Amino acid sequence: MNVILLSGGSGKRLWPLSNDIRSKQFIKIFRGEDGEYESMVQRMYRHLIAVDPDADVTIATSRSQVSSINNQIGDMARSASGTSGKLGIGISVEPCRRDTFPAIALAAAYLAHERGVDASEAVLVCPIDPYVERDYFEALKTLSDHVAETDVHLSLMGIEPTYPSEKYGYVIPDGHGRFAGVTAFKEKPDKETAQACIDRGALWNAGVFGFRLGYMLDKAEEILGTSDYRTLYDTYDALTKISFDYAVGEKEPSIDVLRFAGEWKDLGTWNTLTEAMDEPGIGQALMNETCSNVHVLNELDVPVLVMGCRDMVIAASPEGILVSDKEQSSYVKPYVDRIGGQVMFAEKSWGEFRVIDVGENSLTIRVTLNPGHEMNYHSHEHRREIWTVTDGHGAVCVDGEVRRVGAGAVIELPAGVRHTVHAFDTLRIMEVQLGADIRTYDKIKSDIAKDWWKE
Amino acid sequence: MNVILLSGGSGKRLWPLSNDIRSKQFIKIFRGEDGEYESMVQRMYRHLIAVDPDADVTIATSRSQVSSINNQIGDMARSASGTSGKLGIGISVEPCRRDTFPAIALAAAYLAHERGVDASEAVLVCPIDPYVERDYFEALKTLSDHVAETDVHLSLMGIEPTYPSEKYGYVIPDGHGRFAGVTAFKEKPDKETAQACIDRGALWNAGVFGFRLGYMLDKAEEILGTSDYRTLYDTYDALTKISFDYAVGEKEPSIDVLRFAGEWKDLGTWNTLTEAMDEPGIGQALMNETCSNVHVLNELDVPVLVMGCRDMVIAASPEGILVSDKEQSSYVKPYVDRIGGQVMFAEKSWGEFRVIDVGENSLTIRVTLNPGHEMNYHSHEHRREIWTVTDGHGAVCVDGEVRRVGAGAVIELPAGVRHTVHAFDTLRIMEVQLGADIRTYDKIKSDIAKDWWKE
Repeated sequence: MNVILLSGGSGKRLWPLSNDIRSKQFIKIFRGEDGEYESMVQRMYRHLIAVDPDADVTIATSRSQVSSINNQIGDMARSASGTSGKLGIGISVEPCRRDTFPAIALAAAYLAHERGVDASEAVLVCPIDPYVERDYFEALKTLSDHVAETDVHLSLMGIEPTYPSEKYGYVIPDGHGRFAGVTAFKEKPDKETAQACIDRGALWNAGVFGFRLGYMLDKAEEILGTSDYRTLYDTYDALTKISFDYAVGEKEPSIDVLRFAGEWKDLGTWNTLTEAMDEPGIGQALMNETCSNVHVLNELDVPVLVMGCRDMVIAASPEGILVSDKEQSSYVKPYVDRIGGQVMFAEKSWGEFRVIDVGENSLTIRVTLNPGHEMNYHSHEHRREIWTVTDGHGAVCVDGEVRRVGAGAVIELPAGVRHTVHAFDTLRIMEVQLGADIRTYDKIKSDIAKDWWKE
Repeated sequence: MNVILLSGGSGKRLWPLSNDIRSKQFIKIFRGEDGEYESMVQRMYRHLIAVDPDADVTIATSRSQVSSINNQIGDMARSASGTSGKLGIGISVEPCRRDTFPAIALAAAYLAHERGVDASEAVLVCPIDPYVERDYFEALKTLSDHVAETDVHLSLMGIEPTYPSEKYGYVIPDGHGRFAGVTAFKEKPDKETAQACIDRGALWNAGVFGFRLGYMLDKAEEILGTSDYRTLYDTYDALTKISFDYAVGEKEPSIDVLRFAGEWKDLGTWNTLTEAMDEPGIGQALMNETCSNVHVLNELDVPVLVMGCRDMVIAASPEGILVSDKEQSSYVKPYVDRIGGQVMFAEKSWGEFRVIDVGENSLTIRVTLNPGHEMNYHSHEHRREIWTVTDGHGAVCVDGEVRRVGAGAVIELPAGVRHTVHAFDTLRIMEVQLGADIRTYDKIKSDIAKDWWKE
């Protein structure tokens, strides 16, 4: 099974747990099989490879999400590839935002040219963020097999509606069987029209569809003028902004839909997200017995105590604290836009950082490197850094000089000095950045020998 | 006017803004005259010296509050003493908690022996934490003058009740004049009894009383066996635990009460405290228009966004976050006792510190020294410290070596090395403490020459 997972969104609607870097699909709120919390991305990937250990998964996303993806499923993907012989996950990076058709065309070209998928093979495209159970993934497998076994150009997945939602698109099938032809689409109808659609047997459009890879490459040629991966990538910002539904879906006569009746939820707001939580509190949370229907998501290192509250969500991160009635929490975005501000935490391919103090001419950051990982070799033009290793063991390279470090080591890095660090075990560093104008983009990458830390 | 302010309480009822070190009277929530926030302690002191610039004020308190008092009113007291010729404030430190009579006796002895107050002078004792306006302080002056002009042994202040409270003590006067004799006391009656008391003209007992200093020294001799300050101080933990009301107040036949009808509030819970706030939000707080009767007190560096809430208090500090219905917030204590944990912020005589990260074998602290102030010269047996100066200018002394430091300076302090720092202007230091077992009490004080930093 070849699967393209669409991972988008900047996700301010789940502030303060989502920010410009961390979209909602990276928030860890579900209990995984090992009892640890996992994100929607991790959950989706885990289920996919459980249903099909040979699944070839490509994530179509923006550059800003690559580090988080590597951090969250990099190791899982490497260990899956170890057993199946596959290459783990692929990442098709969109150079900028261009709507869904260019993104899907780029990912299709990536599959063809970078991962060697044959034009005759079936490919599925799925959003990365529905909240679903194992039966959904089995339906994906059915859909993929169906595409491979028939000549239908485009096969959708339709969800049996549970209420006349005004938020979803509807697909009207021409029959009541497991697979049926599609007679019409209806995008976000009002409630009455939605009910009328449902009465005619309409299904929610899950945004999932399958096709043979060659079909999508042909569409790319036809609509964008090329299906060459490099060309698409290099000219991406000049491509027409056009949605897949408009460019392809609604025009395709050879189309059918697979009916799916299992659990399927869009967790786009605090209200819906908290409904899917396995427990009322994540992190240090204490609620007294007078609370009802309260959910706490606390990523800070201090406790949250809630008393006498009902129908509320409380979310805390290094970026801020939300205290909201659940209903009201859907309207968070305009207020968050007003808050603005600095990104205070992020996952990186090598681990994570958290801003713990913002001074007038300083920024103090807690850096955690995962075992076996390392940063890029880099320098800063305008700032000094003082690193104090607080836990773990590693090696640092400072302008070519390699030395072993452990808890208590102090490394002074004047502006202009190239540096990196490799972690032998989990390595924690308190990093004080000093300078009048500290910016993320003040970073000059350099080359360094592979395995430099083995010296 | 000689005034003893009783400053007690460990104040978990206002968690997380109060903790084992910071009692409620040190929380800065009122707008002062200069527009800056001030605490009850600062507000009380400011009003006192406004009504009587020559007021000799002594604060009777425990050792744990001395730093906070110096931090909050040290400079104000020094500047007041500069204009009036007085010595600023006195602090009578209770070596341990022994109830109100030993505390008052100790403070009275302190006034006699350490501040040279004559036995014939009038002395007032007042709690440090009622929320009152200027008329209250004028009433204090009236009470002090009354004591000085009459032969009454003990003069109380009684507050005109506004409702039949079950939380206060009542004083039953024998008349309706401004001053009246006292016929009886009634401690925390039920509502009906309270109403009956009020119908008889009863007043709330404000905990304020005046006497000639000699009277209290005689009582100390009589009840505790001595009125010598040093003896009381050195044998304090062996003194009988006994309340002033029980030991003296209720037995004294020569007693009267001053009627006071102005504003007087006990701000002991979030509910009453927020009622006295000048604005709904302190710190970074954003409430949308669907909120009503919500108060936010945010001491963190990140914003709090509140939506769709009513009748709530939200308080955030480095120690935790409280989200509570106002009514429920009175019951916070048992839950806070369960949380326990480390003191995460404190005011010191030289400035303040805030724990910003707790690692397995490390503690990172943001230290702010006020201009012209310095720490004690000290060393630690079991931990190293790495200081990075992030802002300001100062001088450090490390094992006798003095050097000037500014932003960017790094000072490594191995275990056993004596050190201190003096701030020329506001000096901020990021201090990483490293060790397997980091404890506040691992601190050995040393002597150092006065003005060592002038070298």
